[in-house]
Amino acid sequence: MKRTTFPGELLVSLRRGEGQSLREQLEGELRTAIQRGRLTCGAALPSSRALAADLGVSRGVVVLAYDQLLAEGYLVASRGSATRVASRPPARPAIGVTDEPAAGPRYDFRPGLPDTSIFPRRAWLSSLRRVLAVPDVETALGYPDPQGARPARLAIAAYLNRTRGTVARAERTVLCTGFAQGLRLVCDVLRQRGVTRVAVEDPGHGGQRADIAAMGLRVSSVPVDDSGLRVDRLTRLNVGAVLVTPAHQFPTGVVMAPRRRQALLEWASRHDAIVIEDDYDAEFRFDREPVGTLQGLAEDHVAYIGSTSKTLAPALRIGWLLMPRRLVDRTALAKLHADHGSPTLDQLTLAEFITSGGLDRHLRKARLLYRRRRDAMVAALQSHLPASKVRGVAAGLHLMVALPAGTDEDAVLAAAEQRSMRIYGVGPHRARDAGAALLLGYASLPEADIRAGVALLASCLADKAPGTKPRPIALTRIWDPAERRLLAGIAAEASIGGERQRR
Amino acid sequence: MKRTTFPGELLVSLRRGEGQSLREQLEGELRTAIQRGRLTCGAALPSSRALAADLGVSRGVVVLAYDQLLAEGYLVASRGSATRVASRPPARPAIGVTDEPAAGPRYDFRPGLPDTSIFPRRAWLSSLRRVLAVPDVETALGYPDPQGARPARLAIAAYLNRTRGTVARAERTVLCTGFAQGLRLVCDVLRQRGVTRVAVEDPGHGGQRADIAAMGLRVSSVPVDDSGLRVDRLTRLNVGAVLVTPAHQFPTGVVMAPRRRQALLEWASRHDAIVIEDDYDAEFRFDREPVGTLQGLAEDHVAYIGSTSKTLAPALRIGWLLMPRRLVDRTALAKLHADHGSPTLDQLTLAEFITSGGLDRHLRKARLLYRRRRDAMVAALQSHLPASKVRGVAAGLHLMVALPAGTDEDAVLAAAEQRSMRIYGVGPHRARDAGAALLLGYASLPEADIRAGVALLASCLADKAPGTKPRPIALTRIWDPAERRLLAGIAAEASIGGERQRR
Repeated sequence: MKRTTFPGELLVSLRRGEGQSLREQLEGELRTAIQRGRLTCGAALPSSRALAADLGVSRGVVVLAYDQLLAEGYLVASRGSATRVASRPPARPAIGVTDEPAAGPRYDFRPGLPDTSIFPRRAWLSSLRRVLAVPDVETALGYPDPQGARPARLAIAAYLNRTRGTVARAERTVLCTGFAQGLRLVCDVLRQRGVTRVAVEDPGHGGQRADIAAMGLRVSSVPVDDSGLRVDRLTRLNVGAVLVTPAHQFPTGVVMAPRRRQALLEWASRHDAIVIEDDYDAEFRFDREPVGTLQGLAEDHVAYIGSTSKTLAPALRIGWLLMPRRLVDRTALAKLHADHGSPTLDQLTLAEFITSGGLDRHLRKARLLYRRRRDAMVAALQSHLPASKVRGVAAGLHLMVALPAGTDEDAVLAAAEQRSMRIYGVGPHRARDAGAALLLGYASLPEADIRAGVALLASCLADKAPGTKPRPIALTRIWDPAERRLLAGIAAEASIGGERQRR
Repeated sequence: MKRTTFPGELLVSLRRGEGQSLREQLEGELRTAIQRGRLTCGAALPSSRALAADLGVSRGVVVLAYDQLLAEGYLVASRGSATRVASRPPARPAIGVTDEPAAGPRYDFRPGLPDTSIFPRRAWLSSLRRVLAVPDVETALGYPDPQGARPARLAIAAYLNRTRGTVARAERTVLCTGFAQGLRLVCDVLRQRGVTRVAVEDPGHGGQRADIAAMGLRVSSVPVDDSGLRVDRLTRLNVGAVLVTPAHQFPTGVVMAPRRRQALLEWASRHDAIVIEDDYDAEFRFDREPVGTLQGLAEDHVAYIGSTSKTLAPALRIGWLLMPRRLVDRTALAKLHADHGSPTLDQLTLAEFITSGGLDRHLRKARLLYRRRRDAMVAALQSHLPASKVRGVAAGLHLMVALPAGTDEDAVLAAAEQRSMRIYGVGPHRARDAGAALLLGYASLPEADIRAGVALLASCLADKAPGTKPRPIALTRIWDPAERRLLAGIAAEASIGGERQRR
C-alpha cells in the first residue's frame, strides 16, 4: 500500500510493509526534500497533527520524525510557532555525477615507475589469506605499533641484510609509507636534535629538496661527479646531515666510489652527523653486481630509507627506515604523531610475501623484463638519436639523456606533451643550471612503446619551433604531475579571488 | 666437494656445485667475516694470487670478490700495499634475537577500541580478491591519486550520505589514514590560510589538543555542558576554527543540541570560520536514532573527518575528509607532501566492501554485540559501584564514570595497572581540573571480562592506600600507551646522557 500527500509543495510517499518503519520513511523523505531544495529554507511545515491526518499515520510518527530532524539541524522550532526548515540550506549531493580525471598521455616515461601489470596479484592475495588465517590476527588489528608490526620488521630486516648488505635489526627498523614520509620523519627527528641544515646532491631529487625545506630545514647543494658526491665539499658546509643515493645516484645513475663512501662515513663520524641513505632502486642492476649499503658499514651514522615502490608497486605505500639506536624511539614517536602508524595488514602481508619467497621470485622476473626494456631503450636512442649522450644505463628503472647545448628543456617537454607523450627533464632536480637533459623511465613500458616513444621524442627534438606555450616558470620546478595539477588548481582559484586573509 | 683455507685468522669455506658461484661464495664469506668481526678493522688480506692458490680457484675469482667488497666499502686498497679491511667496523646483525614487547594487561578498557575479533576477515579478503580481478587494476597500482582512489571516494561519499546525513561528493572527499592524519592535514591547510588559533572542547581529546599545537597552531578551550559546546563562548575568542564532536562528545558522550548546532554554524558563517567535525563513533547508537552531521547542513564551513578505526579496525588506517570546495586541492596537496597518498589497494578493497553490503552487515552485528556489552558494563557498575555517576551510555564504545571528589585519578590508574588492568582517566582530556573520572571502553571486551574488570576496579577504588609509585607528572598527560612508552624511552636515554646538542 502506498500513501501520498501533498501539503503545499511537500511530496511525501510512504510504503507500508516494506522494511523501513513509517517514521524512518517520513524522516528520509523530509531530509531528502530539504537536501534537494524541494523544501526551501524557512519554509513552514504542517503541524504534526495535520501531517499525520494527511498521511493516515499516528501523530507520534510525525512527532518523532520532526524531533529527529530538529536534532540533526534540518528543522528549527520556536515555542508557539510552526516548525520550519532551517535557514542554512544544505547543498545538494552530486554523487554519481561524472568528473573523471582527464585521460593520461599515451606514453609516460616517468622515471622510477615499475611495471604494475606484473604485480604478483595471486601471491599477494595468498599472503593476505595466510595472514588472516592466523588465529590471533585480531591482536594485530587494534591500534598499530607506531614502529611497525614486529613480524614485518623482522622479515624486512632479514631481507635487507641478505640482499642489500645492511646490518638491519627489527628493533631499529621503523616502518612508514615510503620514501617521502621516511624523509619527513628523519627531518623531524634531526630538527629536534638541533640540526638546521641538510646537504643534498646536485643534481638530486627536486621533490626531496622541497620536502626537506618544508620540514623547516635549510638545504645546501653539493655537486656530484662521476664518483658520486664531492665529499670534500661537505667539510666546508655546516650541515648536520646529508642525503645521498650511493647505489645509483638520482638522476645521473653514478655509483658512489669506494673512496668516497669511506670519506663520507669518516666525515659523519667526525662530525657526529647523519647520512640519509636513499636506496631507491638498488634491486635493479643489470650489468654488475649489487652495491652494498652505507648502512651496513656504519649503522650508527646512517638513516637508511627504502620502500616497495620500485620493487612491487608505488600504490602499496610500504617503506622502512633503519635508524641509529639513539634515534629509533624519536622516529617511532614522529610516526605516531604523523598518522598513528601504517596499516598493519599490509605490513604483515608483505612479511608473509617475503618469507614465502614471493618477493625474490617477483624480482627475478622483473629484472629480466626491465633489462630487456633497458636494452630496447638504449637501442632506440642509438637508432633515433645517435648523437645523444646517455648515462646511468647499468642499473635502475630510468636513464638520463643529455640534450644538445642551448636546448630549452621545458619546450621539449611541452612539445612531447602535445604528442601525448609525457617525459621528464632534469631541470627540477638541479640546483645550478648545467645543461638540459631528459630522464626516461623504461621499466613500465612495453618494448614497442619504448621504440615508438623514442621515435616521437626524436621528432620533438628535431622540431625547432614546437610552438607550445611554456608553462609558468614556477610549475616547471615541480616534477610530479599530481603536484603540478594541484598547484595549478590552487593558483587558478586564487586568481579567481576565492582567497581571503583569515585570522 | 668442500675446500677450506686458513690464512691467518681467516676461515673461508667454498662448496662446489651448490648453486652459488665460487666468487659469490667467497664474497659472502668475506663479508660475513667482516660483519661478525672475525676479520678486524685494518687487517691485511692475502694477495689475490696467494688466496687463489690457497683455495684452489682461479685468481680472477678472488679479484672479482675483492673488487665487489671494495665497491661496498668493506675493503680498502691503496696502490702498492695490501688490500685491507676498512677502518669502520660494521656492527654485527642481531636478527632473530628476541626482544618481544612485554605482554599487555589482562583487561584493557581503552576507550574507542572496537572488537577486532569480529573483523570480517573472509569478506575483506573477498573484496580484495574482486579488486585484484579487475583487468585494469594495474592502472591503480602506480603512484596513488593523493586525494584517494576515485572509486573509493565515491563509495565512501555515498555511504556517508546514506547513513550520516552528509552531503558528501567524491570530488570534495580526501582520503587519509585516520583521524590523526586528517586533523593534521586540516591544520596544515588552515595555517596556510592564516588561521593561528583553533578552539577545542573542554573536556576534549587530549591527543588532539597536542596534535593541533604540534602543527603550530594555538589552542583555546571552550567548555562543554549537557547541550554540548558553549557556542556563546566562541564569539569571545579570536579563533579561525573549532574542533567538535557533535554526534557524541568525547569524552562525556553528550549530543550537541539542535540550537547549539544552529548557533555554531551561524558563528562559522559569520566569521568565515571552519568547524572541524569529528564523527568518530557515530555508527554506534543504542538507545536513540543516529544524529546527522553538521557537514550535511553547511558543507562550505565544515571539515568533516571520519575513519574505519571504530567501525572495522584501527589497524586498517583508512580515514576520510569531506572538505569545503575551496580547501580541497590544498588538502590533497598537503596529503601528497605528507606521504604521497594512502595505499590504493586498501581504499579499493574498502570501496568493494561497502558497495557489496559488507560494511552494513558488519555494523549490524557489531551494534548488537556492543549493546550487550554496554548493558553488561552498566549492570556491573550498578552492582559494584552503585554510587558512581555514569555518563554517555546511549552511544559509542565507552562510557564515563565520575569518581568521588578528591580521588587521585592517577593513583587509581596505577593501582589498576598493578592488578593487570589498564583503565583510562579523563585527566589528559581536561584543560581545567573538574574532578576525577574514568573512561571505560567496553566494545572490545567479552561480558565476563567486563564484569571481572569492574569488580577489580571497585577493589582499586576501595583501596585507600594503593601504595603505587605515581608516574612522572608529564606522562600522566599522555593517554596513549604507545606514546607514553616511547616518551619514557626517550627520557631514559636522555638521562643516560646519550643526548648532545647538534648543529
